[in-house]
Amino acid sequence: MAEDLAEAEDRVLDQPRIDAVLEAVEAGDRAAVDALLEPLHAADIADLLEQIGPGDRRALLRLWSHEIDGEILSEISEAIREEVVEALPREVLVEAVRDLETDDVVDLLEDLDEPQQEVILDALEDADRVAVEQAMGYPEYSAGRLMQRETVVAPEHWTVGEAIDFLRKSENLPDQFYHVILVDPRMQPVGYVTLGRVLSSPRDAALRAISEESFRTVQATDAEADVAYIFNQYHLISCPVVDAGGRLVGVITIDDAMNVLDEEHEEDMLRLAGVGDEASVSDGPVDTVRQRLPWLVVNLFTASLSALVISQFEATIAAIVALAALMPIVASTGGIAGTQSLAVAVRALATRDLTRANAGRVVRRELLAGVMNGLGLALILGAAGVLIFGDWHLGAVLGLAMIVNQVVAALGGVLVPLTLERLGLDPALASGTFVTTLTDVMGFFAFLGLATVMLI
Amino acid sequence: MAEDLAEAEDRVLDQPRIDAVLEAVEAGDRAAVDALLEPLHAADIADLLEQIGPGDRRALLRLWSHEIDGEILSEISEAIREEVVEALPREVLVEAVRDLETDDVVDLLEDLDEPQQEVILDALEDADRVAVEQAMGYPEYSAGRLMQRETVVAPEHWTVGEAIDFLRKSENLPDQFYHVILVDPRMQPVGYVTLGRVLSSPRDAALRAISEESFRTVQATDAEADVAYIFNQYHLISCPVVDAGGRLVGVITIDDAMNVLDEEHEEDMLRLAGVGDEASVSDGPVDTVRQRLPWLVVNLFTASLSALVISQFEATIAAIVALAALMPIVASTGGIAGTQSLAVAVRALATRDLTRANAGRVVRRELLAGVMNGLGLALILGAAGVLIFGDWHLGAVLGLAMIVNQVVAALGGVLVPLTLERLGLDPALASGTFVTTLTDVMGFFAFLGLATVMLI
Repeated sequence: MAEDLAEAEDRVLDQPRIDAVLEAVEAGDRAAVDALLEPLHAADIADLLEQIGPGDRRALLRLWSHEIDGEILSEISEAIREEVVEALPREVLVEAVRDLETDDVVDLLEDLDEPQQEVILDALEDADRVAVEQAMGYPEYSAGRLMQRETVVAPEHWTVGEAIDFLRKSENLPDQFYHVILVDPRMQPVGYVTLGRVLSSPRDAALRAISEESFRTVQATDAEADVAYIFNQYHLISCPVVDAGGRLVGVITIDDAMNVLDEEHEEDMLRLAGVGDEASVSDGPVDTVRQRLPWLVVNLFTASLSALVISQFEATIAAIVALAALMPIVASTGGIAGTQSLAVAVRALATRDLTRANAGRVVRRELLAGVMNGLGLALILGAAGVLIFGDWHLGAVLGLAMIVNQVVAALGGVLVPLTLERLGLDPALASGTFVTTLTDVMGFFAFLGLATVMLI
Repeated sequence: MAEDLAEAEDRVLDQPRIDAVLEAVEAGDRAAVDALLEPLHAADIADLLEQIGPGDRRALLRLWSHEIDGEILSEISEAIREEVVEALPREVLVEAVRDLETDDVVDLLEDLDEPQQEVILDALEDADRVAVEQAMGYPEYSAGRLMQRETVVAPEHWTVGEAIDFLRKSENLPDQFYHVILVDPRMQPVGYVTLGRVLSSPRDAALRAISEESFRTVQATDAEADVAYIFNQYHLISCPVVDAGGRLVGVITIDDAMNVLDEEHEEDMLRLAGVGDEASVSDGPVDTVRQRLPWLVVNLFTASLSALVISQFEATIAAIVALAALMPIVASTGGIAGTQSLAVAVRALATRDLTRANAGRVVRRELLAGVMNGLGLALILGAAGVLIFGDWHLGAVLGLAMIVNQVVAALGGVLVPLTLERLGLDPALASGTFVTTLTDVMGFFAFLGLATVMLI
């Protein structure tokens, strides 16, 4: 028992262990590397490979690649997956891939080049290859690619005793299953029973009578993001997948759904910030530039709109140069307000808490909040303007411009993603650029326009 | 079977159903409301309550509150939870709460006022109240609050047959369980066996021999965010919770961990945008202002730093007014670059992919990417400057300022969250404000400073 705890402590990937691994790699001490990595979970070994530099990674793989198993491969981030697969001797790759369940092979294949895919497909046994190729026939990011094909089914009229006897005799049960799926004679799922219920019910109980109310199915062509939503919304543990004819073709378990949810969040966060949605901390500088520069160039052009607006007021600025110093305050505070409103709206769209039912009320809420925030900020900024410059006209211009821009920001933050969603686009995509362009342009225009009218 | 599918279709919360419910509420037609809501999952009814306006919500609750069950209450978002609890007749509340598992009661209580907590605690049976009060004794957002106390355990020396016989005889098994936890005589967990394995193994197999390699435990005082990380990293389905003495006190299941993961993401996204981390689309305008105005005021002051920097160069601007129009381009593009770098860093910190092992390399990567992005943007902007203004000095100033600010943005985006993390603070908190302040100040300073040296 104490042994168990000691083992548990031992299984952590921490800095001392990473340092020790790197030392052992440098010394070419294969036995030490083995001893250090052996107790780690495949996911932690994958993290280690991601966190060390490319040089160390190559050295570690040279020394240790014979130990790599399929689970490590399927845990490795897309950013370095091709590199690692390339570094492996073909026989190691073949061995590793044969260990995997077909859904993990599909997950592994998706992010590889055509030639690497071929090597892996060739490595599989015939039955598995056919299964993988069938899964790859479903659309990318669909339930069909996410599901495992091995299911545990029972005819709907069976009793608990029949199910238990059947399970006892089965030799090829999947590694993971939490329900017995009840099917009709056409293999259409009609319900499921948790294993806990099977175990705690009398042998003569009908499976149908103890099946779960939460039962739902998804289509193989459904988007995996929708599947993750359903798991989270309805607290599912597993969910049968059916084809267009309603026949059972596989099952998705919650651990895969949790993974998808996590990736969807990552995508939202990165897209909102204008980074390619595959950005990873393990990317090299060139990949990083490739992901970021396009949006920066777009922003260069949208920022030129602000410059164009300001240039219309050069005469005003020439007359009162202090305006040039003050104008970014209105624009920048608007940008922050727009980002706030945007984050709440994008999140609510992702969780389906912002729908047609409440869009109108949310927009009105933003409008009101924008007016109130604007008034609060206008009071502070206007007062500062009066106190510092001794000019209440300038204070009024600052305050009024602030109110206008806060309202624009609050509305823009919710209307831009709503519009993108209505157009069938991802509301997180490019929203940030649109909204800050809007608040910059309106901030400069309102401030300089009001200044031209009231101060000149 | 076709019936099953029809039922499934029927269970969706869509716009027509929301409209129909609101109509029935307005007509005071309780039977129609019942018929419309009855097929819905509790989570969908909670969503409906969140999405309709406060007036409709009160009317719906008046008409329908006798049907509210505990599951709906525990699904309702914090933003309207107090309001709903307040609107319920006490006997309905008492009835609803008694249905719930103790971990759901804890979850419900956490976000309520003291007096409302009292009402609910009083409603519970003695044993449940003690259990809930014990759970509330654990720190907020800890594993102890998240866990369910009902566990299914077996002595470590039992066989499969003994476990099955025991489960058969148990009358009080939890609603949800996926493993039999093996414990030693001191109730310390030493392993677990999946129910699938129990069902498919011979009766005389030792449980110990078929226990899972993935076995891990968490401490009751561990942060729930860490628990969610462990579930996602190691693909756990359930995880025993132990006290300081290593004794089993409860179990956490993956559906709760998935929920925590989802909330952690929400928190990161909202904090990064400078919104209180409890912001919800159902908040009223006053709550919205309360969440957002503080950060806007902070930004008002940080933006004044930019104004201060610009004001130092008023003589330069007075000499060449076009500079006032051009300066926001450099600052704004820097802000976007900082946000990009920040999003990748905050996400990587949250998933523990950015650690001491690779921080140095990631910072160097950002530096290099910043230089390359800066060169790319400088070429475009510099050329535009030369072409439009026919002044290669101005083009050079624009280009150089852009390179400086891109490097500052890329470094700031990763160093600010790393520093916050090192200080034990949430790296998402306020990072956005720090980084954009940095890029604004540096953008204006570099551009106007270079202009003063090279153009005047």
